[in-house]
Amino acid sequence: MSLKAYRILQQVDVIVGYKTYIELLEELVTEGQRVVSNGMTKEVERCQQAINLALEGEEVAIVSSGDPGVYGMAGLILELLQEEVKLEVEIIPGITAANAAASSLGAPLMHDYAVISLSDLMTPWEVIEDRLEKTAEGDFIVALYNPKSKKRVKQIEIARDIFLRNREPNTPVGIVRKAKRGDEELIITTLVEMLEHKIDMVTTVIIGNSQTFKQDNLMVTPRGYEV
Amino acid sequence: MSLKAYRILQQVDVIVGYKTYIELLEELVTEGQRVVSNGMTKEVERCQQAINLALEGEEVAIVSSGDPGVYGMAGLILELLQEEVKLEVEIIPGITAANAAASSLGAPLMHDYAVISLSDLMTPWEVIEDRLEKTAEGDFIVALYNPKSKKRVKQIEIARDIFLRNREPNTPVGIVRKAKRGDEELIITTLVEMLEHKIDMVTTVIIGNSQTFKQDNLMVTPRGYEV
Repeated sequence: MSLKAYRILQQVDVIVGYKTYIELLEELVTEGQRVVSNGMTKEVERCQQAINLALEGEEVAIVSSGDPGVYGMAGLILELLQEEVKLEVEIIPGITAANAAASSLGAPLMHDYAVISLSDLMTPWEVIEDRLEKTAEGDFIVALYNPKSKKRVKQIEIARDIFLRNREPNTPVGIVRKAKRGDEELIITTLVEMLEHKIDMVTTVIIGNSQTFKQDNLMVTPRGYEV
Repeated sequence: MSLKAYRILQQVDVIVGYKTYIELLEELVTEGQRVVSNGMTKEVERCQQAINLALEGEEVAIVSSGDPGVYGMAGLILELLQEEVKLEVEIIPGITAANAAASSLGAPLMHDYAVISLSDLMTPWEVIEDRLEKTAEGDFIVALYNPKSKKRVKQIEIARDIFLRNREPNTPVGIVRKAKRGDEELIITTLVEMLEHKIDMVTTVIIGNSQTFKQDNLMVTPRGYEV
């Protein structure tokens, strides 16, 4: 969490968020602050609730995990405000899962990279598949978000196959569960073996580019300095 | 800056960094802490110096702007350590320019995105150009780092032309100088007009995807929620 986010959370009247993230913040909440939380898939309601509270005159913080600007609540809040009475909104950037996971793995994101969500709930799968193809061909390091859920298991297999057609089977792949949340788990494996490891909705998968190497327990992509 | 980075900077014996970034930290340095800074393009020396100090038994923090894991010092430190006596290294993630700039612009990175450096000092230009093509075709939001320097002016023009061939001329483009450094400057323009604005080495350029829109003074990419 950034110093800025920390300071703002201490100042506001109300903190709104998805209940799992609110739980992570519990020890920061001070007496006199109100906390409003709800469940997954209730994003629109949650943001509307935050807006309504702000319209009532409360100072409201709505929290996202990682960076609210990356598949988070920032865009939705702004979209919902389109037709509303103007409110003062400030987006506080955070550390998104790609960067958090990368720091635990070593330094895999030292060169051009892409962030792709494998969730096809709101994006046609053909679009996602095309983006996987393009980044695999372009030798990007790729961070995959929402790689797999209980119902959605094929996407990560297709993604893996696309990269296998474009990169060496022993390309390093980092798999990080709950990056920087205290109970983090991580493994560095390879493209050909990655599906043998546990991957779920709280996992970030980072696929190296053609230059990425494994060094001891770390995954490193060279920037290009002569060392 | 994250709470973690702040705490660590207060604990260490020595802080090492590029002089411009060290200046940004000046008020954090406490009595008894040593500061070692040097100029641009001296990255290898700077990292080696940090390693040497650590080998002498000092607790050393080496600082990067943004996220040290994105075109920063994390990878170089790990590469230089390959042949060295083992040292304990911890990478503290930060907020990279793409995410910092995005938060000032609104919420442009709400969908799949790519980060590409236009600096061809250490990467062949053909590789960079190919990556621009791939992400333009794949409808990624793209954050361009190091877009232009005094000597390097053509790259941003080529990049712009690649995107113009793949996206509408009025696609929103955000140009942010010195994102979140206190003297930030920003403008939201379009693909066709972006080159009329000041772009330099401390600028991050964010090109929207086909869905990105401008709303008042903000740039927003919808995630796909029904609003």
